[in-house]
Amino acid sequence: MIKGIKIATTNCGIKYKNRDDLLLVTFDSESNVAGVFTQSSMPAAPVVWCKKNITQGTAKALIVNAGNANAFTGKSGEEVVKATAKSITQALKCKDEQVFISSTGVIGETLNSALITNAIPQMLNQLENNEGSWEKASRAIMTTDTKPKLIKKTCKISDKKVELIGFSKGSGMIAPNMATMLGYIFTDANISSTALQTLLKEAVEKSFNAITVDSDQSTNDTVLLFATKAAENNEITDAKSLELTDFKTALHELSLGLAKMIVVDGEGAKKLIEIEITGARNSTQAKEVAFSIANSPLVKTAIAGCDPNWGRIVMAVGKSCRETSPEKIIVKIGDFILTQNGAKHPDYIEKPVHEYLKNSEVKISVDLGIGKETSTVWTCDLNEEYIKINKDYRS
Amino acid sequence: MIKGIKIATTNCGIKYKNRDDLLLVTFDSESNVAGVFTQSSMPAAPVVWCKKNITQGTAKALIVNAGNANAFTGKSGEEVVKATAKSITQALKCKDEQVFISSTGVIGETLNSALITNAIPQMLNQLENNEGSWEKASRAIMTTDTKPKLIKKTCKISDKKVELIGFSKGSGMIAPNMATMLGYIFTDANISSTALQTLLKEAVEKSFNAITVDSDQSTNDTVLLFATKAAENNEITDAKSLELTDFKTALHELSLGLAKMIVVDGEGAKKLIEIEITGARNSTQAKEVAFSIANSPLVKTAIAGCDPNWGRIVMAVGKSCRETSPEKIIVKIGDFILTQNGAKHPDYIEKPVHEYLKNSEVKISVDLGIGKETSTVWTCDLNEEYIKINKDYRS
Repeated sequence: MIKGIKIATTNCGIKYKNRDDLLLVTFDSESNVAGVFTQSSMPAAPVVWCKKNITQGTAKALIVNAGNANAFTGKSGEEVVKATAKSITQALKCKDEQVFISSTGVIGETLNSALITNAIPQMLNQLENNEGSWEKASRAIMTTDTKPKLIKKTCKISDKKVELIGFSKGSGMIAPNMATMLGYIFTDANISSTALQTLLKEAVEKSFNAITVDSDQSTNDTVLLFATKAAENNEITDAKSLELTDFKTALHELSLGLAKMIVVDGEGAKKLIEIEITGARNSTQAKEVAFSIANSPLVKTAIAGCDPNWGRIVMAVGKSCRETSPEKIIVKIGDFILTQNGAKHPDYIEKPVHEYLKNSEVKISVDLGIGKETSTVWTCDLNEEYIKINKDYRS
Repeated sequence: MIKGIKIATTNCGIKYKNRDDLLLVTFDSESNVAGVFTQSSMPAAPVVWCKKNITQGTAKALIVNAGNANAFTGKSGEEVVKATAKSITQALKCKDEQVFISSTGVIGETLNSALITNAIPQMLNQLENNEGSWEKASRAIMTTDTKPKLIKKTCKISDKKVELIGFSKGSGMIAPNMATMLGYIFTDANISSTALQTLLKEAVEKSFNAITVDSDQSTNDTVLLFATKAAENNEITDAKSLELTDFKTALHELSLGLAKMIVVDGEGAKKLIEIEITGARNSTQAKEVAFSIANSPLVKTAIAGCDPNWGRIVMAVGKSCRETSPEKIIVKIGDFILTQNGAKHPDYIEKPVHEYLKNSEVKISVDLGIGKETSTVWTCDLNEEYIKINKDYRS
């Protein structure tokens, strides 16, 4: 429980029945805030809103709806965001820029702002902060997710105990007819918004930005990090401060934990696949090759079938990295070494690798043999379930 | 029938039973030749061989095997290629560099060169050139293809009648456990190898390089263009010559025809999807956006389900083109205009678009609204069949 944060959820009737689809989080005092957003040139209205506001660095409220992405909705989409903010600023006596807004759901459908603004007054009266609030919050933002995704951590900054709580949603970079990977992390640490922004970017790079379900980036992707300062540590303004070592570890573990929960809940996914690239010239190259493997439908279907079809891994390396060559690379599945000198390893036996691939978590490693940099990304297998979920005509 | 070309096919026992898996084509006189190859840094041994030889520009023979890609096979792979060439050069009294070799099939398995070299003497005795030869040739190079892919064209250079015959294979950029998109085009035109190389590159850019089944590029992709000169037109050495207008059209149509046959035969594919991007700043940008849509599993599964889920098209544009914005783009499916001013078009009705998507050939168009350049690419839908073909454990 982080002091000074209050939560309310409700069903406001956008799409779902019998479950909450609207989340309101308020901060008793101004919270510091940092954010990272989709790189899409088609950002949803709430993303445009948050990107504009994030620079001033303080927050009084977060509001998230599920069921409609408010993306590609033109002028009317902007009006919805403004109306939503207005009904909160009036009640909380804060500025427009201190209200953060996210939406997730179908793209291109007009969102009826009255559904949200009518629900806000009652939500403001029901704000609470107890064990169940966070669980409810993590459920209210779900779309095709089959499970809520919530993680808590504690750490220390100097001698002060610091708490972190985060939740996320996503079940594919884009869920069927839906959009969005969303993540929200809250801490009571006293860290300036500038330092917070650096910390969040670093954490996201190796967690939320290191996962893929189907290579598709949404119009609404958003991760926000709020710091209430209630832990009463001396304010930290430098992200490089050694006092942050423990906090950084906790933030990284929490972000990665949430990111992996998204992959595991990937549409129809049965397996978590970790892909580690070593021996790269630089980390960008390492990540490119890792994603080339992670996004290859042929690799992902092979893993679904527990088939150690490593030729497809070689193919994915070959198409994404022009610098290396067959003699230089070493391909591994689990601890099994598959290649040597540009050919199949002489000791390679297929059967135990096939057995290994029956695990629910499997690892593919490739050393590119041209440098010292590394990157790790996570994805899931691709099977008939994904097609089924995404193919069926919306009715 | 192109004079001076002879063909033999046989079953040499690499993988398949009851069908030919080895193709030999010989040229009575030195033929001019041009080629384009996979950009992979893991090229198969025969690709390395052909890339080295293509610069000298003449050919006496082409040999292609199906069932083993001879890719990622190290030193032994090189030896296979050398041994294959040797058994042909001795018989035909030609140079190593005049023998072009391709392989397609599983990656990483040693290819037994004796299977090929033992078959060659008999094939040299069975060379023929009749109506059935080309059909047999197109069948001998198949892997998971369900149909042979063969096209003939005629055109004129000055007053001389010129013939073109081409065949290709491919059923996915990589078929299951297999590799390779292969294409071979033969003409009797008298065109220098340098001019031929330019003509082939231009044709491939808008045909074989404008298709995708699963975004995966193989280790063996090869397209070769042979010109026997038998049509007896005055030799053309400048690819820009106006005399080539008719030939260029024929070559383009033939290449595109073969490329589309590959997409239609894409693994499990039920629909041919044409994606046209207009209004781009340059053609590279147009092609990038086109492929972003063509490779999006979410777009491809939506089309499989006849679902006009245009939000996914917007998503794919947004992630691949940072320069445009919602207000600038116009999305169309068939002749239906779906968007306007960054939102759903006011006149858009879903039902007729859903009906339109039941066709076996469908078109998606996006105008980016930022320039005048265009690009068109082709792909297929993504359905359960693809997963089934690629998932099942090789047994």
